[in-house]
Amino acid sequence: MFNFKIIAECKTTRARAGILQTAHGEVETPIFMPVGTLGTVKSLSPEELITCGAQIILGNTYHLYLRPGCDVIRRFNGLHGFMHWDGPILTDSGGFQVFSLAKLRKVTIEGALFQSHIDGSQHMLTPEKSVEIQLCLGSDIVMCLDECIKYPAEKKDTQNALELTTQWAKRCKDAFKNEKNALFGIVQGGMFKDLREMSAHDLLNIDFDGYAVGGLSVGEPKDLMLEMADFTLPLLPDTKPKYIMGVGTPEDIVSLVALGADMFDCVLPTRNARNGQMFTNTGTINISNARFKNDIDPIESECTCYTCRNYSRAYLRHLYLSKELLAYRLNTIHNVHFYMNLVRQLRTAICNGEFEEFKKEFFKNSLQPQL
Amino acid sequence: MFNFKIIAECKTTRARAGILQTAHGEVETPIFMPVGTLGTVKSLSPEELITCGAQIILGNTYHLYLRPGCDVIRRFNGLHGFMHWDGPILTDSGGFQVFSLAKLRKVTIEGALFQSHIDGSQHMLTPEKSVEIQLCLGSDIVMCLDECIKYPAEKKDTQNALELTTQWAKRCKDAFKNEKNALFGIVQGGMFKDLREMSAHDLLNIDFDGYAVGGLSVGEPKDLMLEMADFTLPLLPDTKPKYIMGVGTPEDIVSLVALGADMFDCVLPTRNARNGQMFTNTGTINISNARFKNDIDPIESECTCYTCRNYSRAYLRHLYLSKELLAYRLNTIHNVHFYMNLVRQLRTAICNGEFEEFKKEFFKNSLQPQL
Repeated sequence: MFNFKIIAECKTTRARAGILQTAHGEVETPIFMPVGTLGTVKSLSPEELITCGAQIILGNTYHLYLRPGCDVIRRFNGLHGFMHWDGPILTDSGGFQVFSLAKLRKVTIEGALFQSHIDGSQHMLTPEKSVEIQLCLGSDIVMCLDECIKYPAEKKDTQNALELTTQWAKRCKDAFKNEKNALFGIVQGGMFKDLREMSAHDLLNIDFDGYAVGGLSVGEPKDLMLEMADFTLPLLPDTKPKYIMGVGTPEDIVSLVALGADMFDCVLPTRNARNGQMFTNTGTINISNARFKNDIDPIESECTCYTCRNYSRAYLRHLYLSKELLAYRLNTIHNVHFYMNLVRQLRTAICNGEFEEFKKEFFKNSLQPQL
Repeated sequence: MFNFKIIAECKTTRARAGILQTAHGEVETPIFMPVGTLGTVKSLSPEELITCGAQIILGNTYHLYLRPGCDVIRRFNGLHGFMHWDGPILTDSGGFQVFSLAKLRKVTIEGALFQSHIDGSQHMLTPEKSVEIQLCLGSDIVMCLDECIKYPAEKKDTQNALELTTQWAKRCKDAFKNEKNALFGIVQGGMFKDLREMSAHDLLNIDFDGYAVGGLSVGEPKDLMLEMADFTLPLLPDTKPKYIMGVGTPEDIVSLVALGADMFDCVLPTRNARNGQMFTNTGTINISNARFKNDIDPIESECTCYTCRNYSRAYLRHLYLSKELLAYRLNTIHNVHFYMNLVRQLRTAICNGEFEEFKKEFFKNSLQPQL
């Protein structure tokens, strides 16, 4: 069922455009996946997501496992039915949240013992358990359980995390008896090229439907992030989709597409919208700024999103300052639309053989955040 | 421009169906007006309001005057353009909030001196100022500034408030030089029938486009509220629209329509939605209830609202317990749809000569709130 086809490649960079075929429909790459942590992309309806151009969304295994729990979601034959989203869903393994959000009790080869951040209840997340939960969620793309190491980290610790990740990946593959959905491996290895190489090599031996680069955007300088992505992406087979996890700004996405990445997810467009920070083609603006008090123009004149077609900066500022619920939604619509429009433009440019020009133009217009 | 036409009357009760013509289109009565305090019916888009059956909404003069202020709204030629709502808008006078929400400094014949609940700034609300603000908002139905007295109240205090209300009503009428929009007077007089009679008599002498009954649902027992409405509504001319302010439950609305009321507003459907309390034909349910944990059915099976067509009680419970923004919106859609559907059914029943049967059936099915 799962399939990946490249339909166009840039001649001068590693950028490519493709089609991911999943059990819930096709996804055009490069693609950005809005984050729907708890079975909802915060404040948006599924219909709005589609209007914004979303094709695939991300669900968080850790959160959904704790709340509402697999027993509830099983009644709906998975997350799609539960949340009224018929398109493809990728789920993370839960590992990242166990290591960052939960109270971690103990990590062994067996798995990670943790306490829920909600009620303190104790749970064990093993590779097998992670796959089981993700299959219960009906995920179209299942991610292997990994240990994502923070930056900076010692080489020894990084290598230990990577070796655990490889062992867990093997067990995920064994546990994953499913022909409908896809299983992706995650390359770790921190900021050490030889470890990244080792990780990629070991994962390729196990053989996955796609590969993610994990452990980026964990606190390292931007240059180093791009350097590691530049080094790691070519280690992965070009016939398979390549996914950079948890990244990033619009600038990051353009740069990483040039390096050969196909898939992205990040909370930036949604979280920043709820903080009043809006993305535009000439940088970010904060909608609470006093200069928008009487501004009858939309966030961005040429933007075709629902928010920009119908509402002014003055109204959005008023809603935001008044903490009105509609504020978060209208802001989120704009930011998600902005991200989806960006990857659509990248794809079109690649298909038309104009990617380099697009990239050049993009970085000329894009300014640093104006907060 | 403003006009009211009765198209059907119940033979055995005072219920009637009519058409209000306003500068922003027609409204079919009996009608319920969702409350859009700050230029937004909390969590809903204007398109969703229309889909829910809303025909006219209410804006709060006190809130909009303080935030964003008339200088901003004037740039949009009024509230319609500012908030992207093209239908009719009724605005209150601001009086109720000045007396209930602001820090009241002094009430004289001239007006009410108050401090903003937001920043403590001092403002004077006079009848002329209230009309001026409402016309700046572009309100289709402007309400006279009144003094609404709490329950219980002494007769002397009630009479003083009523006399002030009458004087202010006269000044509102003088200040209201406008042929496009309508001006409504508000009958006060608390729970004293002779005072209600005096108030109605004096207002009729001034002559308004429509009449509201204020000072109900301010703490008095339900029976007394209905008794006062029953007494007051026939004092008002049948050729004019009659509006019961700030009321009420679905049961109240059915009872009051039988007594001859045409218009209603209340925060119940919207506020209760945000507290998880959902209206159904057999009483209210609280969506956070544990019995809905695995419930794959919608809030109400026969309901045709967006929420009931697409989401289960289990999902709504999950969103609500997770404090997800989508929860408030999906709940509000259902409750507003429920209220709009109720008044539509009342209207249809009146037009078909079946109002009494409908009312009987309604009270047979309607249970007390099950919290």
